Amino acid sequence: MKPSLYTSLSPALLPLYDVSSSIVVIIDVLRATSTIATALYNGARCVIPVDSVAKCIEIGRQIDGITAGERDGHIAEGLEHGNSPFEYPREFVAGKTLVLTTTNGTKLLHMALEKGAQQIVTGAFSNLDAVCDYLTRKAQPVVLGCSAWKDRVNIEDTLMAGAIINRIGSAFDINCDSSKMAETLYKDAKKDLYGFMEKKRASHFIRLSGYGLQEDIRYCLTSNAANVLPVYSEGKLTSDLTI
Amino acid sequence: MKPSLYTSLSPALLPLYDVSSSIVVIIDVLRATSTIATALYNGARCVIPVDSVAKCIEIGRQIDGITAGERDGHIAEGLEHGNSPFEYPREFVAGKTLVLTTTNGTKLLHMALEKGAQQIVTGAFSNLDAVCDYLTRKAQPVVLGCSAWKDRVNIEDTLMAGAIINRIGSAFDINCDSSKMAETLYKDAKKDLYGFMEKKRASHFIRLSGYGLQEDIRYCLTSNAANVLPVYSEGKLTSDLTI
Repeated sequence: MKPSLYTSLSPALLPLYDVSSSIVVIIDVLRATSTIATALYNGARCVIPVDSVAKCIEIGRQIDGITAGERDGHIAEGLEHGNSPFEYPREFVAGKTLVLTTTNGTKLLHMALEKGAQQIVTGAFSNLDAVCDYLTRKAQPVVLGCSAWKDRVNIEDTLMAGAIINRIGSAFDINCDSSKMAETLYKDAKKDLYGFMEKKRASHFIRLSGYGLQEDIRYCLTSNAANVLPVYSEGKLTSDLTI
Repeated sequence: MKPSLYTSLSPALLPLYDVSSSIVVIIDVLRATSTIATALYNGARCVIPVDSVAKCIEIGRQIDGITAGERDGHIAEGLEHGNSPFEYPREFVAGKTLVLTTTNGTKLLHMALEKGAQQIVTGAFSNLDAVCDYLTRKAQPVVLGCSAWKDRVNIEDTLMAGAIINRIGSAFDINCDSSKMAETLYKDAKKDLYGFMEKKRASHFIRLSGYGLQEDIRYCLTSNAANVLPVYSEGKLTSDLTI
């Protein structure tokens, strides 16, 4: 029998799924999980996801890490860096620890953790193949967790769930309309994800392009630009190739 | 300025939207809101939606109404009738009152009520045009409320939201990814809604066709078979053409 796969389109829907026996993929395409993959790909020692700015500052000070994060799309007050993958090139981030807090992605990760997820990894288009390879190799139940925007379902995280399902769905038993919808949406969009987001006037597209961040959007919709697998263990995300 | 339109894909997401200044359209295509439209179209005096089987029995006794409803797709214990639109032809239902409780739709209606919705109507493909005409005529903010299945997003309610948006979306200001996704899904499916549900193996399609209810599904996906507007007021849904 194939393992199950479900898609939770919003953190508010995560309680509906049994994460305790599942690998949970945290998806926050714009931009937390794209940035996490990028920082690790560029040699960061680890990323510590935290759910508040205060904790970010505290831990950053204790371990001499880079404090990073945003609230509502801007660098959060008191932090040194933001949530753009372009802020973390190899020459800056290699060997360092990033302490990261974001509006949606890191919050969902902590939610999955509190609910006893068996394993947590993070996924974005940046590391799509790494996530797919891992999920097929493990052959365990999967919950794709979209971070959404303050619990409101968003297009880009749904597209990322759809991209995973489009590639490896046949290896899973999918009795989940959200997953079917995500894959259908992805098939519509896959030829030009950026153009799709622009044409649909996706809320996050409007928000970020309003800040002049079109290049961030473009990068975050590019497959496998930072193809590592961020795995959560003991408070840290590391690029673990051995699990 | 155009009024806003949002789509809530699950009752668990309804709290994210301001219903107090909105018309809320309760959507439960399979089968509550299809059956409500059908019963009223066939001359039922009114439909009283209740959120528990006990209340259904109690009110049914008090007013000598038809007690109807399902739990998990079957006639609920202690009730006389189920949730199939075919149970309510004119010769049976005309002039009568239906007291109805269902797994998802009537629960969402009461949720919208508790949250102070300005106006509640119910929508299904059966009364698609009546709903669209009403919403454009009123030109007020709208929340399309999908009933889903025990809070899990489903395809058919999303398709119905998409059908409304596809017809009248241009009259509204839609900054809502769920709405964009619903319309995209509908455009993919509209040539053959039944075939789409079947091909995607929609969870409710599997569930109801497992009970041999293919004709119910076919009817519930047919546009304007019972084109009235059920409007909620003082505990009752009536087909009110004057509002």
